[in-house]
Amino acid sequence: MNEIKIFSPATVANVSCGFDVLGFCLDSVGDDMVIRKTDKKGIFITKIEGFDLPFETELNVAGVSALAMYNAIDVDFGFEIEIYKNIKPGSGIGSSAASAVGSVFGMNELLGRPFNKTQLTAFAIKGEAIASKCEHADNLAPALFGGFTLVKSINPVQILEIPSPTDLYATIIHPQIEIKTSESRAVLPKEVALADAITQWSNVGSLIHALHTNDYNLLKDSLHDVIVEPHRSKLIPHYDDVKKASLKAGSLGCGISGSGPSIFSLSQGLEVANKVKEAIKLVYAETGIAFDIHVSKINTEGVKIV
Amino acid sequence: MNEIKIFSPATVANVSCGFDVLGFCLDSVGDDMVIRKTDKKGIFITKIEGFDLPFETELNVAGVSALAMYNAIDVDFGFEIEIYKNIKPGSGIGSSAASAVGSVFGMNELLGRPFNKTQLTAFAIKGEAIASKCEHADNLAPALFGGFTLVKSINPVQILEIPSPTDLYATIIHPQIEIKTSESRAVLPKEVALADAITQWSNVGSLIHALHTNDYNLLKDSLHDVIVEPHRSKLIPHYDDVKKASLKAGSLGCGISGSGPSIFSLSQGLEVANKVKEAIKLVYAETGIAFDIHVSKINTEGVKIV
Repeated sequence: MNEIKIFSPATVANVSCGFDVLGFCLDSVGDDMVIRKTDKKGIFITKIEGFDLPFETELNVAGVSALAMYNAIDVDFGFEIEIYKNIKPGSGIGSSAASAVGSVFGMNELLGRPFNKTQLTAFAIKGEAIASKCEHADNLAPALFGGFTLVKSINPVQILEIPSPTDLYATIIHPQIEIKTSESRAVLPKEVALADAITQWSNVGSLIHALHTNDYNLLKDSLHDVIVEPHRSKLIPHYDDVKKASLKAGSLGCGISGSGPSIFSLSQGLEVANKVKEAIKLVYAETGIAFDIHVSKINTEGVKIV
Repeated sequence: MNEIKIFSPATVANVSCGFDVLGFCLDSVGDDMVIRKTDKKGIFITKIEGFDLPFETELNVAGVSALAMYNAIDVDFGFEIEIYKNIKPGSGIGSSAASAVGSVFGMNELLGRPFNKTQLTAFAIKGEAIASKCEHADNLAPALFGGFTLVKSINPVQILEIPSPTDLYATIIHPQIEIKTSESRAVLPKEVALADAITQWSNVGSLIHALHTNDYNLLKDSLHDVIVEPHRSKLIPHYDDVKKASLKAGSLGCGISGSGPSIFSLSQGLEVANKVKEAIKLVYAETGIAFDIHVSKINTEGVKIV
């Protein structure tokens, strides 16, 4: 096999209570990529469609993660990478993670899978780092492993795969506004009240328990964020209205996807997730701000060959 | 049935990462209590052995929780409570919780179980509150439900029962020193670094996952406390030496039990738990401080009729 086409999915990081550690994988949104062996040694980005991203390997997220893997192997050939980007950079649903994951996953397949997903995460972290200026894996992990993940540690990489109910659906709205990463970082407090931290880890614990036990009521009780949402939600126009509409339409919870501006909701069943979509559309249609909105089942497989 | 004898177990609150929310139940240490119906209406503490505690119902933890339940029912008889206290008050292994739980559990049995364990927790909270000056349930929940518990909320009471591996044992040392509650409160920071809070909720999440999946290695990786231990451990003589000896002897983790001074270790298998016991004994035998030390399997049943 000399060429492979893969689908690298969008992801939701943080999941309300799990800032910096939790994430889940989407099914209906993602990038397509083609990875191809080539006689010339090295990593070459040969095609980028959809968004304007750098072709220089060292400046491209997919290129940097590919290089990290390439430097760990000893082969007499190289790889070409074609990127068909559907996830808008800066949308808050793991655009850079999808790129970082896609190249290393595809190369690993062409190489006969010398690396496991934990090792692939370590390579992908290098690519993710040039997009977000720091090493983190809360989007990479769900993109690679699928389903819900908890990043226990990034050095060494330790990813936990958390089971989830089969009837869980996400509704994602992406308002077409730009939030600067620097701004979404700047609003975060360096210190938090111990009482709030306790509430948050109680919710993380109960969310993990709810996912293990298919307890939708407990999911609903756990999807709260008392640490980050109060600060970052101010950067997203009409956030409170969207959340109110989502919960009123029957969602289990609604929160900021990653650092925003996308907003996710989780619902039991496709029907409710679609109702939530319609309710949120109504809110945003009145704002004059352009937006995309998707319903997706939880993608339990992660990045895959197509 | 007019009289019942019950065993109300000692418990370990916090469990390293889960300050204020996690707890587990011990098997080898606990109070015995007798609850008896009596013609005279009201709640009467008729016997206390072991430690010097108030006989006045309104001042006694078991009495206050009993009164909370008694005021919620309409009966033409009363209850007598005998307390055979084995858990030293102030030892950090849920002495007041055992008292608070014992009376309401016993009364509920004599009444034909009109209340479930969640409701019993709500009554017991009233008794616990007079001992600790605030309403909390991190010892009450494991004493009532057994096993590992997560207190999701106390108003309304919401307790999660977390499964645990069958081969898990606790080693508990109780140094015979007094730490004033006011002191153990005063050392706690009001604010914590966001980075530390993230570490803590990652550990809570992974601990819950480890308990669900019987993953002893992950238990070991999760039993860390970066928030409370650095402050409270200073109040316990030779804490660091005990912890070092415990881990060296093979325990999965070692931390402060509740607000101390007791120290718990968790181990895979009775043999390791006993080795941990011997290693800790060696440390404390040299200090000249009197101590009790116990090995206990995790008590999955909680308070029970004997």
